[in-house]
Amino acid sequence: MTRTNLMARNTDMRWRLPLVCLLWEVAMIILFGVFVRFKPEADAAGWAEEKKRKNITSDAENDFYFRYPSFQDVHVMIFVGFGFLMTFLQRYGFGAVGFNFLLAAFGIQWALLMQGWLHTFENGKILIGIESLIGADFCVGSVCIAFGAILGKVSPVQLLIMTLFQVTLFSVNEYILLDLLHVKDAGGSMTIHTFGAYFGLTVTAILYRPNLDQTKDKQGSVYHSDLFSMIGTLFLWIFWPSFNSAISNHGDAQHRAAINTYCSLAACVLTTVAFSSALEKKGRLNMVHIQNATLAGGVAVGTSAEMMLTPYGSLIVGFICGIVSTLGFVFATPFLESKLRIQDTCGIHNLHAMPGLIGGIVGAVTAAAATEEIYGPEGLISAFDFSGTYAYRNPSVQGEFQAAGIAVSLGMALIGGAIVGFLLKLPFFGDPTDENCFDDDVYWEVLEDEESSLYSMQDSNGKSPTSS
Amino acid sequence: MTRTNLMARNTDMRWRLPLVCLLWEVAMIILFGVFVRFKPEADAAGWAEEKKRKNITSDAENDFYFRYPSFQDVHVMIFVGFGFLMTFLQRYGFGAVGFNFLLAAFGIQWALLMQGWLHTFENGKILIGIESLIGADFCVGSVCIAFGAILGKVSPVQLLIMTLFQVTLFSVNEYILLDLLHVKDAGGSMTIHTFGAYFGLTVTAILYRPNLDQTKDKQGSVYHSDLFSMIGTLFLWIFWPSFNSAISNHGDAQHRAAINTYCSLAACVLTTVAFSSALEKKGRLNMVHIQNATLAGGVAVGTSAEMMLTPYGSLIVGFICGIVSTLGFVFATPFLESKLRIQDTCGIHNLHAMPGLIGGIVGAVTAAAATEEIYGPEGLISAFDFSGTYAYRNPSVQGEFQAAGIAVSLGMALIGGAIVGFLLKLPFFGDPTDENCFDDDVYWEVLEDEESSLYSMQDSNGKSPTSS
Amino acid sequence: MTRTNLMARNTDMRWRLPLVCLLWEVAMIILFGVFVRFKPEADAAGWAEEKKRKNITSDAENDFYFRYPSFQDVHVMIFVGFGFLMTFLQRYGFGAVGFNFLLAAFGIQWALLMQGWLHTFENGKILIGIESLIGADFCVGSVCIAFGAILGKVSPVQLLIMTLFQVTLFSVNEYILLDLLHVKDAGGSMTIHTFGAYFGLTVTAILYRPNLDQTKDKQGSVYHSDLFSMIGTLFLWIFWPSFNSAISNHGDAQHRAAINTYCSLAACVLTTVAFSSALEKKGRLNMVHIQNATLAGGVAVGTSAEMMLTPYGSLIVGFICGIVSTLGFVFATPFLESKLRIQDTCGIHNLHAMPGLIGGIVGAVTAAAATEEIYGPEGLISAFDFSGTYAYRNPSVQGEFQAAGIAVSLGMALIGGAIVGFLLKLPFFGDPTDENCFDDDVYWEVLEDEESSLYSMQDSNGKSPTSS
Repeated sequence: MTRTNLMARNTDMRWRLPLVCLLWEVAMIILFGVFVRFKPEADAAGWAEEKKRKNITSDAENDFYFRYPSFQDVHVMIFVGFGFLMTFLQRYGFGAVGFNFLLAAFGIQWALLMQGWLHTFENGKILIGIESLIGADFCVGSVCIAFGAILGKVSPVQLLIMTLFQVTLFSVNEYILLDLLHVKDAGGSMTIHTFGAYFGLTVTAILYRPNLDQTKDKQGSVYHSDLFSMIGTLFLWIFWPSFNSAISNHGDAQHRAAINTYCSLAACVLTTVAFSSALEKKGRLNMVHIQNATLAGGVAVGTSAEMMLTPYGSLIVGFICGIVSTLGFVFATPFLESKLRIQDTCGIHNLHAMPGLIGGIVGAVTAAAATEEIYGPEGLISAFDFSGTYAYRNPSVQGEFQAAGIAVSLGMALIGGAIVGFLLKLPFFGDPTDENCFDDDVYWEVLEDEESSLYSMQDSNGKSPTSS
Repeated sequence: MTRTNLMARNTDMRWRLPLVCLLWEVAMIILFGVFVRFKPEADAAGWAEEKKRKNITSDAENDFYFRYPSFQDVHVMIFVGFGFLMTFLQRYGFGAVGFNFLLAAFGIQWALLMQGWLHTFENGKILIGIESLIGADFCVGSVCIAFGAILGKVSPVQLLIMTLFQVTLFSVNEYILLDLLHVKDAGGSMTIHTFGAYFGLTVTAILYRPNLDQTKDKQGSVYHSDLFSMIGTLFLWIFWPSFNSAISNHGDAQHRAAINTYCSLAACVLTTVAFSSALEKKGRLNMVHIQNATLAGGVAVGTSAEMMLTPYGSLIVGFICGIVSTLGFVFATPFLESKLRIQDTCGIHNLHAMPGLIGGIVGAVTAAAATEEIYGPEGLISAFDFSGTYAYRNPSVQGEFQAAGIAVSLGMALIGGAIVGFLLKLPFFGDPTDENCFDDDVYWEVLEDEESSLYSMQDSNGKSPTSS
Repeated sequence: MTRTNLMARNTDMRWRLPLVCLLWEVAMIILFGVFVRFKPEADAAGWAEEKKRKNITSDAENDFYFRYPSFQDVHVMIFVGFGFLMTFLQRYGFGAVGFNFLLAAFGIQWALLMQGWLHTFENGKILIGIESLIGADFCVGSVCIAFGAILGKVSPVQLLIMTLFQVTLFSVNEYILLDLLHVKDAGGSMTIHTFGAYFGLTVTAILYRPNLDQTKDKQGSVYHSDLFSMIGTLFLWIFWPSFNSAISNHGDAQHRAAINTYCSLAACVLTTVAFSSALEKKGRLNMVHIQNATLAGGVAVGTSAEMMLTPYGSLIVGFICGIVSTLGFVFATPFLESKLRIQDTCGIHNLHAMPGLIGGIVGAVTAAAATEEIYGPEGLISAFDFSGTYAYRNPSVQGEFQAAGIAVSLGMALIGGAIVGFLLKLPFFGDPTDENCFDDDVYWEVLEDEESSLYSMQDSNGKSPTSS
């Protein structure tokens, strides 16, 4: 077996990976110790006081009960959804699910700090509650997306470094959008998908590997790996209504966001199947499309789901995105790879980048089209938070700011991705050689002959009973 | 490889499948545009008004928070549960999980319309909320059940056509039961399981293929496919308490339905194991029984779980159904196939048909046995909705109507299934030849040698290093 | 194939397994009939009365809505989480997921009775509600843990007998801790993990098999089985916040428990990866560590998560436990096997025993460190229930009782495990021979050549196209 030899010393993680993990975790502990405390709603003394102060009689008013079920669904999406979606590669299942686990576990800690400093920093402390956990998961979602573009081509140390920077930039971008531009983006079409996808695409463009096609066979799936991947797809698809409604306002907004997302996703499946069949020879369906493009409808209502998009509008968005995304896999991905040198392992351009942009646009249009007639006078104010400094705004102004949010997210992603991409090219992060890409052997203990030994009971010389 | 040649032109989906998908999705968009709007509880203006009108002070009173967690569990059951349960076939995993995804995504849209027209049609509009989504998922559940009978033997176009008709008939049958007969059936023993299963069995009887035993090897499972199938089984089993309690009355009824279902399912596992071991040679357990018969206890308390069935009564129902269902797999399925020409791929007769009938009967008996002593005077009225036009009813009358509901469901299923079965025999829907049944190759892009290439690194000529 | 011959008559389950299952299920039915009734909150008459009596205006106050989402998450952990975690063995996937299913389904029924008699027995009746279901799942969790130590080495009859006794002892131990010592242990570091793990380790020590290393190949994993196992890992990891918060007080306590667990688990992943990489040759990661040690952080905050551990404290606990657990897999497990004759199939010593002890200690220290300043005067009383008979207690006394709870759990586990271990050595329970350990063939119908036939289309004589 020459495979082992090909892994030159540079991919040995023995000192680098432990060092980075421990250093950063120690930093997290110190920073959490200095900054992070519970919100009153999660604090033993605080909740009792808050109940008195606000004259609350029931624990059911604690934000925990409005958001916890959605939080757990989102948590499943980040760790099982994204993790298993990426197991489609025949020899990279451990890396897909394992590295996703690693980067997300690190990222959520750093996100709690970054988002805390920028959003809930009071008297020198970050106060966290259930909404903070959802926010951290969302932030990490954008890193999982970017991971999809570079899947199989980077070392875990590179991933952790990218996570550190991407979470930082995500939080800054989110701050600009939500706080400075006062934009609505509850399901993150702009902040999560557009930002995450273009960030990842820029990174992979800079990490371009010209000789990667010699591992073409490893870039494909096998029968079972496609089924593992469907576990990821389905949990993402099923829980997407929770994703888009998790941090919306209590009551009608959460309710509506779930319904809109449900409708958009359903329509998206139909057009994905239609175009997958139409574009493949003999009209057969392609698992890559089913695994990915069916989810584009959830991405594309990320901004507008909590608005009065209506079920009908949601169906239209899903309808379009299933088509756009499937066309993307058939035409855009090969084009990006051959002409623009963008090697996008999972096709995040089709699942997150384009649908994310569409989602931003749909959100801007839906916001601009809002009227008092549809939302009611109070409803309009609470839906878009036209109060305080923003009392002057009207829907059409809001629509313009929403559109600006798209541009900002895109710009931050391209610039940030370029910087991080060049950083990751530094030669001491242990990235794999071209031959070792898409292969778990480099960073994981994998028994050589395990699969073949499964049922044939080979002896240790590799001779099977039947071949002898 | 001659496999490819066997797929004659008739299975080419290239124009038919896209056409059907697009046509129907466009129809959905138009119909949703004309008819579907948000319920007040999901509407920006509506919820504010409703809170004022009903003097509601807390958003926690929004129906969303009473039902959303259960909805998401049901959603998992329909897409992951049913989808993966059917992946047990060794070469039909894509079809199982992919076609289930397709038909459910289409079905829920059509179900929102059909159930809306029949149940929540007001002033020319269908008002949808979280309960509508659960209802749509339930309706589609009955199609997933029927799909189990014809799994591997139909084209996706046939499935979409069956879905259209079955959802329609389901909604009519449900309307007759719930609105005309005023029957209780929160977990759908009658409307979902009895109807869905006998519908599917009738369809498969009409689509009888006499020469199917030549693909006997493909109708079996392999080690890994059985494990994939257990993913489906376990998520169905775990979330069944949510299924049976999802649309029950708030408060004690939802609480009770979850407990009863939990108990019934637990008992069912024990008797399934007992009979599986007793009926197989050397006392070994059969995965088919564990995958399926363990769920019969959930089916059989579908009608009665929200009633005062008691934990003790639930155990008895589960006890019986584990036995009936396992016996069904050992004796009924071969009998149905050889004598009645009913080829039931997944054994839905044993998991849904018989337990569904038992569930209807248990529901009728439990309803008839209700007393004011057990339910309290108000409790009895609210449990069975003995108000308005139905104020005259007493438990024993209710029991009779419940029994009538079983008969109606059965009749609708047999007649509807026969009509749809003959419809599906029309020669232009692209159904597979006998040789192509249970094989993903027909409708999916599957690499020829993928599995064998997994670890043996074969070159493209098919020669492996060891065989050369 | 001589494998079949090796299965001597003693492993034939044909009469024993059905007999045990049926006998015990009948006993359950009788005992439930005599003892088990619904709590008022799940009772048709009871909830109406309770609402009047307590002047409750909203059904949202029903305990069901505070705990049901967490219950379902815990349910997933017990059946999918533990079940799939143990599928890592290459030839024991059916046994892992199937026997876990069987023992848990039986155990929850017996636990409802045992815990009911000891905790909620009133006027000769056990009144059950949603919290009882969570309690039963918790109790069975400790059996699933112990199962991990003896995985692959026992018959299903032995497992059912162990379950009966372990559930009994668990309930007694829990009664001593929660009722007599008045100890807090909402996430069960002591009652579930310490007790369950040392119980299982004692049982496996007594069932020591000196010649087990001849099946060394079967004790390993294969590529796909490791991915199945990751399904279990991730669902356990994701839902652990629900586990530790499921039975905490409404409001801030549940909220806080979820946040603390989230933080601890995140930190644990980082140190697990660090030490896994540092301890393996070439710095590669070991799937066994990722599958197990990443969860230790959840175990170790089981007692203290609902206390004011703070996010910062949680990170420290997770940090330490990732290290301890990974070191355990590398050093302790081989030592236990070679020196102490403890054959611990899944390494529960590292995932549950040590982290459980740490969790007990952290809980004792956190309780002892509680102050009125941190919890508020009312908060301190409600957090530790310093009322009634226990009004005299202060945090430092509470800390001492907590510490006593660890010792009691450990003692009960060792003594109980020893008794049950010797009981299981009785010769008529059908345990497998050494050659048959870790092999599904003994207790499950497994087709001989199934895997190899998957894509090579062998004919029925076993000749494959390539070998002929």
